[in-house]
Amino acid sequence: MAILPAKSDFSEWFTQVVGPEGASLADVRYGVQGFIVHMPYGMRILRRIYELLEEEVELDGHEPVLFPTVIKKENLEKEAEHAGFAPDVFWVTKAGTEQLEEPVALRPTGETQIYPMFSLWIRSHNQLPMKIYQSRITTFRNEKTTRPFLRGREFMFFETHNAYAKHSDAEHQIKKDMEIMQRVITKKLMIPFYFFRRTQWDKFLGADETFCADTMMPDGKRNQLSSTHDLGTNFAKAYNITFLDAEGKTQFAYQTCFGPGIWRIMAALIAVHGDDQGLALPSVVAPFQVVVVPIFKTEEEEALVLGAIEELEQHIHYRYYVDRSKETPGFKFNEWEMRGAPVRIELGPNDLKHGTVIIKRRFGAKLVVKMKDFAAALKEELHANDEDLHERAKQYFKDNTREAETLQEIARLINEFRGFIITNWCSTAKDGEACAAKLKEATQGAYVCGERVDEHQPVKKGAKCAVCGKPATARVYVAKSW
Amino acid sequence: MAILPAKSDFSEWFTQVVGPEGASLADVRYGVQGFIVHMPYGMRILRRIYELLEEEVELDGHEPVLFPTVIKKENLEKEAEHAGFAPDVFWVTKAGTEQLEEPVALRPTGETQIYPMFSLWIRSHNQLPMKIYQSRITTFRNEKTTRPFLRGREFMFFETHNAYAKHSDAEHQIKKDMEIMQRVITKKLMIPFYFFRRTQWDKFLGADETFCADTMMPDGKRNQLSSTHDLGTNFAKAYNITFLDAEGKTQFAYQTCFGPGIWRIMAALIAVHGDDQGLALPSVVAPFQVVVVPIFKTEEEEALVLGAIEELEQHIHYRYYVDRSKETPGFKFNEWEMRGAPVRIELGPNDLKHGTVIIKRRFGAKLVVKMKDFAAALKEELHANDEDLHERAKQYFKDNTREAETLQEIARLINEFRGFIITNWCSTAKDGEACAAKLKEATQGAYVCGERVDEHQPVKKGAKCAVCGKPATARVYVAKSW
Repeated sequence: MAILPAKSDFSEWFTQVVGPEGASLADVRYGVQGFIVHMPYGMRILRRIYELLEEEVELDGHEPVLFPTVIKKENLEKEAEHAGFAPDVFWVTKAGTEQLEEPVALRPTGETQIYPMFSLWIRSHNQLPMKIYQSRITTFRNEKTTRPFLRGREFMFFETHNAYAKHSDAEHQIKKDMEIMQRVITKKLMIPFYFFRRTQWDKFLGADETFCADTMMPDGKRNQLSSTHDLGTNFAKAYNITFLDAEGKTQFAYQTCFGPGIWRIMAALIAVHGDDQGLALPSVVAPFQVVVVPIFKTEEEEALVLGAIEELEQHIHYRYYVDRSKETPGFKFNEWEMRGAPVRIELGPNDLKHGTVIIKRRFGAKLVVKMKDFAAALKEELHANDEDLHERAKQYFKDNTREAETLQEIARLINEFRGFIITNWCSTAKDGEACAAKLKEATQGAYVCGERVDEHQPVKKGAKCAVCGKPATARVYVAKSW
Repeated sequence: MAILPAKSDFSEWFTQVVGPEGASLADVRYGVQGFIVHMPYGMRILRRIYELLEEEVELDGHEPVLFPTVIKKENLEKEAEHAGFAPDVFWVTKAGTEQLEEPVALRPTGETQIYPMFSLWIRSHNQLPMKIYQSRITTFRNEKTTRPFLRGREFMFFETHNAYAKHSDAEHQIKKDMEIMQRVITKKLMIPFYFFRRTQWDKFLGADETFCADTMMPDGKRNQLSSTHDLGTNFAKAYNITFLDAEGKTQFAYQTCFGPGIWRIMAALIAVHGDDQGLALPSVVAPFQVVVVPIFKTEEEEALVLGAIEELEQHIHYRYYVDRSKETPGFKFNEWEMRGAPVRIELGPNDLKHGTVIIKRRFGAKLVVKMKDFAAALKEELHANDEDLHERAKQYFKDNTREAETLQEIARLINEFRGFIITNWCSTAKDGEACAAKLKEATQGAYVCGERVDEHQPVKKGAKCAVCGKPATARVYVAKSW
């Protein structure tokens, strides 16, 4: 195990903690840029993220489907604005040594493959809403720069696609998608985020409105964790998704789609909670919530200690791992701190003598606990681990969300540390774009995230746009981006 | 819902039962040959198959990984025999309008992507065995003819890849893989199979030995459900997978890989258990083990019946679905027989009056059960459903496994109904291949499956090869193939 750089050196720290010399989440040595190998420990965490999301969308009535990895050219290009994805699309053109009659695209996202089937499936208002999702799939975009869990040419994907009879049903779903993110990402993974309505100059290609959950990374940059798109009837018109309403009239369906970014959530888990020692995991996603390290010097002690641990295992009602490897206890302590195990248990000859066991949570002190109190103490420490993470993340988020009134002030604050800057804006409609361009230039890249949807933030009387000075119509957040 | 052809018209029956007019497992109207859409009901069954296999291989110490969808050309072609896959491989050659510098292949199977990483990961005998698996992935081959769940250009995949210090560990794993298949496929899914050692002229490209589980479809054709390959050190030599043994000497690793065919298992589930009414599912994979159909005529009755069903739900400790749709009870009975629900419950005004409920399992008669006996009866009927399936499948398998001594007899039996024919063979080494070619010609395609491994079948004294008449060295099974 190599020594980890300090987390303050975020980019280096992230690379190291992700790799085989760190927490063994992913290996970038596959030999094709932007295509990585997900290693066992990383895969176990990613699988838990998938499971939490699957559970939520199924409770909300979405049904599982699986579509092909490839898309017909003709379908990919049907929705005019959406066709803007084209420059990033990979094409399969050959089989063996033969050219394919019609090349097919590697899916960049699911709309253009799913909506032609919606057009075949949907006939009557009785079938609406139709709510489906694809999980544990990957998708492909020819990104220029790549980095594990942040930007890949192939990356993990999860998407819901819905059709409704009324636009109000679509609006209702956007709220539900936000609540799903709050329950999974904030309540379970302990990652705070803001939920924004994006500006009109920065929405998904083909959408009427785009809504996103943005969190903040340790370098103060924004990390987008999900998007929900209000597609109106744009795709329904392009793909001919119609239904007979109760009066027997043919109508176009309204649609939304929701995509939590599995990789982006993973990146936030690693980056928001980790520290100079490595990962720190909320117990809900930790592959092993409890890791047991036996302490012994002689063979005789080893037999006694391992025997006692077998006893102890009966009382651990969590995902646990007993580290019986040949390494030293010190090595194991470091290893499981690197891997972010929420709670470590140590048991040695001294504990056997006194009927005790040592419990240490990731950010806590070693506790010496009587065996009779073990189960209760373990439960408490696991809970405390999650509280630790939650408090730390909330504090960081709060400390780095600041207000500014002018472009100069925004530039100064963004320069100082980045983070989110709250400010006033002339307009989030198309005519506010010119100010966004000026902001970007003056700050070397700051981005207008949009208006908060999870919390109403009224524009104060007399407030003026930070850039053009015209009367403000929106209170927006600004940040640099990953 | 269309009317299903009789199962005796197997090919038509299968197509219909799979599609949206049947049990809604898959839709072939995606528009790219060999690439299908997995519909919700099918997806729920497939997911259960995956879960059962994941559980087993993890208990056996395999760790989850995920590799990219694409493979470097150079790696794909490193193992000389294995490179025989090349004619079926799809190539990604473009991104946007630009040619890629180096085209990449869509994975036809995992060896050539995984073993270069094994070469990086494995250093010492302390790391062995290394056992990993990929699940819920798809793979790609340019097949000429395609059919849902039997042969696709993209199909569902599951694979384990292991490395060992000794060949005996590899042999031990082959036995364990067979036992995993027996536990999942026969004990849980109620599908009988024979486990064969393939002949030397028909093994996996690059393997020393190949072992397969073959079941029988309703048209008497063999359906291969899994393969385990003993790779010896062939791939270790091609990809340089070495380790330092306990004496500090560099050694090549021995390897095996195991691939249960998720689609092939699905095809067997559909085909082996189904009947003229549609699917019949073992309770372990049924999306809904119990389906409740409310019976009523008036609105008043509807309220009473739906209220009583809400009560009843408290006592159903299985995956269940209450069919509240607007269709008639008769339509719902047909629909859930088509979808193979193990047990249907009916509740109507007459039941309310008498404190009873009607339970009907897929192949059983309607039972009128007192409410107090409901929970016990339900449990019994679910168990009986699985027993029904098991008995029917075993009987069919037994009835269609026959013995023959001569080529003519094999040809006659295969012509009569197909099925498995047990016979004597000169050799399963390379020199038995000429007889296999003659068999194939004389029978329009019969295939030598190999020798049984799950049950020892000794060659009788004086037995002669069915084709060449030379002394037999092996008792082999012969069948036509899907």
